[in-house]
Amino acid sequence: MDTVKMGLAAKAAERILGVAGTGVKNRALEAMAEALTANAAAIIAANDRDIAAGRENGMKDSLIDRLRLTPERIAGMAEGIRQVAALSDPIGEIIEGSVRPNGMKIQRVRVPLGVVGIIFEARPNVTSDAAALCLKSGNVCILRGGKEAIHSNMAIADVLRRAVESTGLPADCIQLVSDTSRESANEMMRMSGYLDVLIPRGGAGLIRAVVENSTVPVIETGVGNCHVYVDKTADIPMAANIIFNAKTSRPSVCNAIETILVHKDIADQALPVIKERLAEKNVEIRGCERTRAILGDCVIPATEEDYATEFLDYILACRVVDSLDDAIDHIAKYSTGHSECIVTSDCFSAEKFTSAVDSAAVYVNCSTRFTDGGEFGLGAEIGISTQKLHARGPMGIRQLTSSKFIIQGDGQIR
Amino acid sequence: MDTVKMGLAAKAAERILGVAGTGVKNRALEAMAEALTANAAAIIAANDRDIAAGRENGMKDSLIDRLRLTPERIAGMAEGIRQVAALSDPIGEIIEGSVRPNGMKIQRVRVPLGVVGIIFEARPNVTSDAAALCLKSGNVCILRGGKEAIHSNMAIADVLRRAVESTGLPADCIQLVSDTSRESANEMMRMSGYLDVLIPRGGAGLIRAVVENSTVPVIETGVGNCHVYVDKTADIPMAANIIFNAKTSRPSVCNAIETILVHKDIADQALPVIKERLAEKNVEIRGCERTRAILGDCVIPATEEDYATEFLDYILACRVVDSLDDAIDHIAKYSTGHSECIVTSDCFSAEKFTSAVDSAAVYVNCSTRFTDGGEFGLGAEIGISTQKLHARGPMGIRQLTSSKFIIQGDGQIR
Repeated sequence: MDTVKMGLAAKAAERILGVAGTGVKNRALEAMAEALTANAAAIIAANDRDIAAGRENGMKDSLIDRLRLTPERIAGMAEGIRQVAALSDPIGEIIEGSVRPNGMKIQRVRVPLGVVGIIFEARPNVTSDAAALCLKSGNVCILRGGKEAIHSNMAIADVLRRAVESTGLPADCIQLVSDTSRESANEMMRMSGYLDVLIPRGGAGLIRAVVENSTVPVIETGVGNCHVYVDKTADIPMAANIIFNAKTSRPSVCNAIETILVHKDIADQALPVIKERLAEKNVEIRGCERTRAILGDCVIPATEEDYATEFLDYILACRVVDSLDDAIDHIAKYSTGHSECIVTSDCFSAEKFTSAVDSAAVYVNCSTRFTDGGEFGLGAEIGISTQKLHARGPMGIRQLTSSKFIIQGDGQIR
Repeated sequence: MDTVKMGLAAKAAERILGVAGTGVKNRALEAMAEALTANAAAIIAANDRDIAAGRENGMKDSLIDRLRLTPERIAGMAEGIRQVAALSDPIGEIIEGSVRPNGMKIQRVRVPLGVVGIIFEARPNVTSDAAALCLKSGNVCILRGGKEAIHSNMAIADVLRRAVESTGLPADCIQLVSDTSRESANEMMRMSGYLDVLIPRGGAGLIRAVVENSTVPVIETGVGNCHVYVDKTADIPMAANIIFNAKTSRPSVCNAIETILVHKDIADQALPVIKERLAEKNVEIRGCERTRAILGDCVIPATEEDYATEFLDYILACRVVDSLDDAIDHIAKYSTGHSECIVTSDCFSAEKFTSAVDSAAVYVNCSTRFTDGGEFGLGAEIGISTQKLHARGPMGIRQLTSSKFIIQGDGQIR
């Protein structure tokens, strides 16, 4: 991987894309969308090679399915690009402004971050999603996908680059790293001076490696050890419904829950209802001693490690707590700061929980599964930040921007 | 240095300080201010030990002066804390909000970052400034000053900690690292899990070391290779005045300029006026060939390295350029992205410069020396960010905050 060459090409493209108007960017996005459908056959042919290789390497059917591109999925990717084009352009927005006592006018205006690096794993649609969000927000992107999808990603990137170029913007606004070795990821992490931010999208191992090794500023995404706390005043059917949805509607995603905490005063009534609901999907419950005393030996004893685990599966830890404070303490100890929920009818409990729980999204009486850019009304999302710097929670195109101060005077000195 | 102990103490304090009301925090700040003046004699005694050690180690007079605390300077530190108390509390602010089609109410509210680490060099007043800004914004701070000021810093931190504790908040809201070895700085850089951000304040070497080695998210501050471009339509006396101010009013700071770029059509008239003005302070000019052709051999030939150097001294590089575009290209190549200025009478040149120059602060017809939290109206400042992530330019207490989403529903599931 020639990081210097890619970096210099990115910086050159940045200077053109960063000052491009909304019309220019939207024409490029429209061309990208059209080119994807026009070249669907070539993309699918490349995808077939990835799928054949996956089969050969014994890839699981569920992963093969995530990898597969069909005419419908490619049409969906094109539609996603058109939705990004329809978002209002954040660049140039005047965020705030004032006139200083000496007459200087200060404005803070929204500008692109510059060059955005994204390291992602299996799904090839991330290539077009990320490219579209970056382009709309005036950012050059350097994308590095997983080796499982390399032929698909290269075909998609090639199509998108030619489309961008056809509208007069540099093809290098979108760059794909063709080398999928571990070394190329490490090299991206050392591209400070070229990259303004690096966003890892994938499993906990990838994210940890990037946080540990990157000299480029990182936005940590995605790991979610999420909780629902059932307060003593909870509406029990509502609690069971929220828990069922948050655990089973899509257990493999980061906003699914992994542990429930149940107030001791309601545990006797609530736990059997919750258990019955979860049984519809054969969810395995790993419970504390008090949970097992209520639900019986069918509940596996929960270990300390269970409370710290993002199962991403039909497994749920369960603990009976003495109070709201104990629930807050448990969450402070085990949560990854993603999404937590209280089910309660008591407004003081709700207020205390939302104030004291230090997570990106804190819910009262609704499912943690809503932590998502689209659900929050941000348009498409580039990821979900679990750090506090720069962006927290679902990130849309605004989170791909920075700002600068523009100061106008007539000769002021200090 | 026991990073685990400090980190755990910080996390415990964070949970109390993070939800403390404005009144509680302001009482602590008032107590801190009072305690500084009440204990001025003890602080000065500690400071005397640092000064004696500095003299013994051959510290320069200018550095001794920066290190020295007097009753007046301590009163100034106390006044600084009171000014921070008077700032409006950013915590709890509702940044935005909406009601989703399914009836969920989403609010984004401002919250503290959590635990802020600051590594700084000589001046002991940073201890009280940083502690006050962090406390007002609900953040626990872990401060590590330079070894030159360790006795002063420990005395100040001790006074502040006792004052905070006397008002009912944990003393550990303010922690000072007593070990000033290089190893302790490296350990702070690995305190991810405890620190939410690490801010290095000091020279380029410190900042580079932190960016290279920190696993904690970093806000890069301060290095300023700043430029003034004199456009062909510039008012020459105004240009000379701005250049004189930006170079000589305080050459050692990051918002002072290091290079001027002069349009070829105005160079013959402008350069002699600029040179004469700079001669008042014996500024050494290092010029390109065309500069030397106009100003004569008294100008030292500028090297490539001169253009890349933050002199922080009475030295100024000078280059004659063919066009506004050439000036923009020069800045893109050599600037550290801090502050740049155009002197012009042409509104199109001004617009092009402010759009195309990618720096934290871009000025039209006024001095780069204004890049400062106080001058921009942010109240006190914790530093000047030269990165694009999270904060850019002068950082006040708002830049020490994050946000979280609070979502209220009545049973919504996805």
